[in-house]
Amino acid sequence: MSATPASLPAALLGAFLTELRATFSDREPRGLYQPIDYILDLGGKRVRPLLALLAGRMYGDEDLRQAMPVALAVEVFHNFTLVHDDIMDDSPLRRGQATVHEKWDVNTGILSGDLMLIQAYAHLCRCPNAAALPGLLAAFNRVATGVCEGQQLDVDFETRSDVTVGEYLSMIERKTAVLLGGALEMGALAAGAGSVDAQHLYAFGRLTGLAFQLQDDLLDTFGDSQVTGKRTGNDIIRNKKTFLYLQASAALPPAESAELAALFASSPADPGPKVERVTELMVLAGTPRAVAELRDAYQAEAVAHLTAAGGDPAVKEVLLQLAEDLLQREA
Amino acid sequence: MSATPASLPAALLGAFLTELRATFSDREPRGLYQPIDYILDLGGKRVRPLLALLAGRMYGDEDLRQAMPVALAVEVFHNFTLVHDDIMDDSPLRRGQATVHEKWDVNTGILSGDLMLIQAYAHLCRCPNAAALPGLLAAFNRVATGVCEGQQLDVDFETRSDVTVGEYLSMIERKTAVLLGGALEMGALAAGAGSVDAQHLYAFGRLTGLAFQLQDDLLDTFGDSQVTGKRTGNDIIRNKKTFLYLQASAALPPAESAELAALFASSPADPGPKVERVTELMVLAGTPRAVAELRDAYQAEAVAHLTAAGGDPAVKEVLLQLAEDLLQREA
Repeated sequence: MSATPASLPAALLGAFLTELRATFSDREPRGLYQPIDYILDLGGKRVRPLLALLAGRMYGDEDLRQAMPVALAVEVFHNFTLVHDDIMDDSPLRRGQATVHEKWDVNTGILSGDLMLIQAYAHLCRCPNAAALPGLLAAFNRVATGVCEGQQLDVDFETRSDVTVGEYLSMIERKTAVLLGGALEMGALAAGAGSVDAQHLYAFGRLTGLAFQLQDDLLDTFGDSQVTGKRTGNDIIRNKKTFLYLQASAALPPAESAELAALFASSPADPGPKVERVTELMVLAGTPRAVAELRDAYQAEAVAHLTAAGGDPAVKEVLLQLAEDLLQREA
Repeated sequence: MSATPASLPAALLGAFLTELRATFSDREPRGLYQPIDYILDLGGKRVRPLLALLAGRMYGDEDLRQAMPVALAVEVFHNFTLVHDDIMDDSPLRRGQATVHEKWDVNTGILSGDLMLIQAYAHLCRCPNAAALPGLLAAFNRVATGVCEGQQLDVDFETRSDVTVGEYLSMIERKTAVLLGGALEMGALAAGAGSVDAQHLYAFGRLTGLAFQLQDDLLDTFGDSQVTGKRTGNDIIRNKKTFLYLQASAALPPAESAELAALFASSPADPGPKVERVTELMVLAGTPRAVAELRDAYQAEAVAHLTAAGGDPAVKEVLLQLAEDLLQREA
């Protein structure tokens, strides 16, 4: 497959979707397999498989044969976490459609999710680069364990009032960032990259993921709703203790910090004044600048790791552009 | 480790429990790891890890280093299925103690179970016989997929009135028998056994598992409660459509078959007369003999596979004795 750097992501995504759909089946029992095809067909940006394929291409996987099993593994794993997380969060919708446990039932969500986790491993094991298999599995086990830990920390934090900024960062790192890093690391390993290069790619993905999460939190409160397409202040209305809340809470003088906590314990019918006051307190705490600085520091560190990695410079450039788009998409 | 054939199972079990307990940890987050240690420490007969270690020993794994990761993998996997199945069946008790979702909550059961499935793979990947890894993983993926399919079929059958005897056997084969076979197959593969021997051991375990399940169903209705320690007729009282019900239903004349169906749609306050009449109908249908014959056929086929396998004859003898004990334990 040849493509100009600019058209490469679209070409890889097309190849991935063809492979993904080829896994859909009429296999029995239908009650087990149908929900799997349903959630995998709902769409999404397919960022993780794209990262895996780009990382493979960086190290010479021209026909995508080495990295494609990794791409399938990370996408199926990611969707497994969505199915089980949606049960735990009691979410009715995913990508605008009914979640698996809503469309079928909770037991179906549990069991189909379990099989998806097994299928993710089965995909990974199909990587034709046999020498890479132990390293791929070690990376996958490590990443998958981290994702479970991140989800548990997220659950724990909901009932704790003493979560620190550091604990929050550790939670989002595991819940979202390590899988982005892992997709890149495993794509590179599958294509035969050395462990130093693979670790640079892992760090690039992990740090970009952290920067993205901070940017996402920042835009929720300080973004232009005309640009983001989302209502501003959603996290504040839902009393979601994001990095912004934790930073402001720690940086404000005691009286204002207590006021912030009280506001986050309230759910007024008209949330307007609450959003306005919380936003004021965050500005007073220097939150927007602090978050932007941390985001930029992560991004700079991410770029340094990508620069230090070997591999095809043209594909590297595509990865860099992709990370920038991700961070500026809604800014 | 040297042991006489008779004392070998106890010696292997002791070694296994030491290794299992060494996996228990103080790792954070506690809400994720504590339930895993809890369920793994509840006990049980540890049949699957014992089978894995015996199979390894049959092919020269004297120090248990090759088969121990398999033993841990199958035990952790089996307990993962218990945690998730107990949620799906809403069971409050497991081995006389509170189930994970009862002691903690459903979300903890889902997430800790997920991590156990990942840990099962991580254990398997620790097998030092690198050449065996692809075969081990292929077997594990196949067995784990079968177990999920078996659980789904079990769920589906609860709301179906047209389940055939063949479908029922296919369900219990996947739900319970393939993991017994897989434990033996993987233990042998880890120790370097060839695929023909490994397949004979798989068949021995699978067929023994089927025979055991039929024996279990038979004793529930026709066993001596003084010997089994369980109330006779439990499955009938709970309207559980076991092999016995399906066989009788197919073998009886239309009028009696309809009577049986009606009895299995009722839940009288005093179940005595119902149990008595269902038992009579089953005797009329020739059920006890039909089930015993099928059980014996499975057992004979199992023994033939074990006999055909290579490996240490002394350990083979231990496996044969273990299968006999399993089938006669409650007879």
